[in-house]
Amino acid sequence: MVVSIIGLGLIGGSMSLALQGKGFASRVIGVESKPEHAARAVELGLADICLPLDEAVAESDLIIIATPINATEKILPLVLDRVEKQVIFDVGSTKSIMCRLVAQHPKRGRFVATHPMWGTENSGPDAAVKHAFAQKATVICNADESDLDALQLVKDIYALLEMHLVYMEADAHDMHVAYISHISHITSFALANTVLEKEREEDAIFELASGGFESTVRLAKSNAAMWVPIFMQNRDNVLDVLNEHISQLRKFKSCLEKENYDYLQELIENANGIRRILK
Amino acid sequence: MVVSIIGLGLIGGSMSLALQGKGFASRVIGVESKPEHAARAVELGLADICLPLDEAVAESDLIIIATPINATEKILPLVLDRVEKQVIFDVGSTKSIMCRLVAQHPKRGRFVATHPMWGTENSGPDAAVKHAFAQKATVICNADESDLDALQLVKDIYALLEMHLVYMEADAHDMHVAYISHISHITSFALANTVLEKEREEDAIFELASGGFESTVRLAKSNAAMWVPIFMQNRDNVLDVLNEHISQLRKFKSCLEKENYDYLQELIENANGIRRILK
Repeated sequence: MVVSIIGLGLIGGSMSLALQGKGFASRVIGVESKPEHAARAVELGLADICLPLDEAVAESDLIIIATPINATEKILPLVLDRVEKQVIFDVGSTKSIMCRLVAQHPKRGRFVATHPMWGTENSGPDAAVKHAFAQKATVICNADESDLDALQLVKDIYALLEMHLVYMEADAHDMHVAYISHISHITSFALANTVLEKEREEDAIFELASGGFESTVRLAKSNAAMWVPIFMQNRDNVLDVLNEHISQLRKFKSCLEKENYDYLQELIENANGIRRILK
Repeated sequence: MVVSIIGLGLIGGSMSLALQGKGFASRVIGVESKPEHAARAVELGLADICLPLDEAVAESDLIIIATPINATEKILPLVLDRVEKQVIFDVGSTKSIMCRLVAQHPKRGRFVATHPMWGTENSGPDAAVKHAFAQKATVICNADESDLDALQLVKDIYALLEMHLVYMEADAHDMHVAYISHISHITSFALANTVLEKEREEDAIFELASGGFESTVRLAKSNAAMWVPIFMQNRDNVLDVLNEHISQLRKFKSCLEKENYDYLQELIENANGIRRILK
């Protein structure tokens, strides 16, 4: 199958490697706005060739949109305008705005809204890795708005990548990812800024940082070009969770200020409840 | 060398396995307040036998204190009262109170205050792992208050464990670990509570949680019995960092509320600076 991938970064590039590795993609056409990314993607084997959007769509059976979410918003309607029987799916981290945007498009059925729950803190073609995605979840949103054959193809692809599928309405998806993913990134960014602001002796960070710090701050390496649009699109949900998170932190602060260590113990034991969910 | 280890949990147990593995400890005597931990520690090979404190100290060349920091505060003076030529070191996460507490003890020189910067979110004898510690840092505090031979022995032990040494005054240590370790735990506990409080659909967390969430929340599994005393002892430093962290989070909140996405981008790019320090 000829596959076009628009955006050959972390997700698009890893998707290309996976679909080539599984023998699904006989040819990969890349679409890249940055010439240096296009060249690098071909060099890394993420695409056989890079072409302009129109040509890529015309030559493909399947189009995957893997750009930052603000670019996807512009690209998806353009692609829908150009498809006949081809199938399109995106891999963006928010879904409500996207789904509303194309709800009335005559070709809406050719599009499947997906969110594979895999990523790293890296970006660009060099961030692409082999064997990504396996054993993680992919959310498919508003599945009943997609044509049955389009949905089936996308389900088959994610099965090939060894992912399990979760079905959700777009609004529910965006609320859940605010908790599961977006707030983790904000706390990590804020933690990095806390340490960089106050801990002027960077040598001390470098020498002392152990696994706990690294795992909490790892996400702070994540790319602004990807994350600002996510926070814009999921603003209301993220603000809800952020407000709750600040009020949870204030409880810890209050315990320390008042030296109420019984309540501090209770807060920690409550947090330990996360063991029920994360093994 | 006969080694007594007081507290055969995550750190003490892993230390036992390392010192036996390297052929340094010919015999390990455990001291455990909980009978079930004592039995389990012997079963797991973390100690040859468990004995009461007095007997253990009398029979040992080296005494390692690896209890929660509030217990160490009580145990260290008792051990110092009982040693002749033996060497003692602790592995606690805070150092100022401990060092002040024994500063005037006639046997102070036999004690070396250390903090190996390694750990996991697990606790108890079953949390002990082989091959812990290697390639991480150990901080030695107030080294000039220890006898030269005691200091040399402890330096040799950490070299054997393949750790590199950092020397600091106890007060500086406690300030740095508030940034590098303690705040990460508070944010992780608070994040777990945020999610557990608001995300009532635990199935959604379970299904969608990906690597980013897991790494940020992993520390929230950490034991209250270990962490409450750390936060008590390092209260002032932790409050400083926590206040700064809350004010950093408020900047993200304000960006979202005011839809000031240029500043949001700036905050994220600033956080990316952590790449300079953490590879």
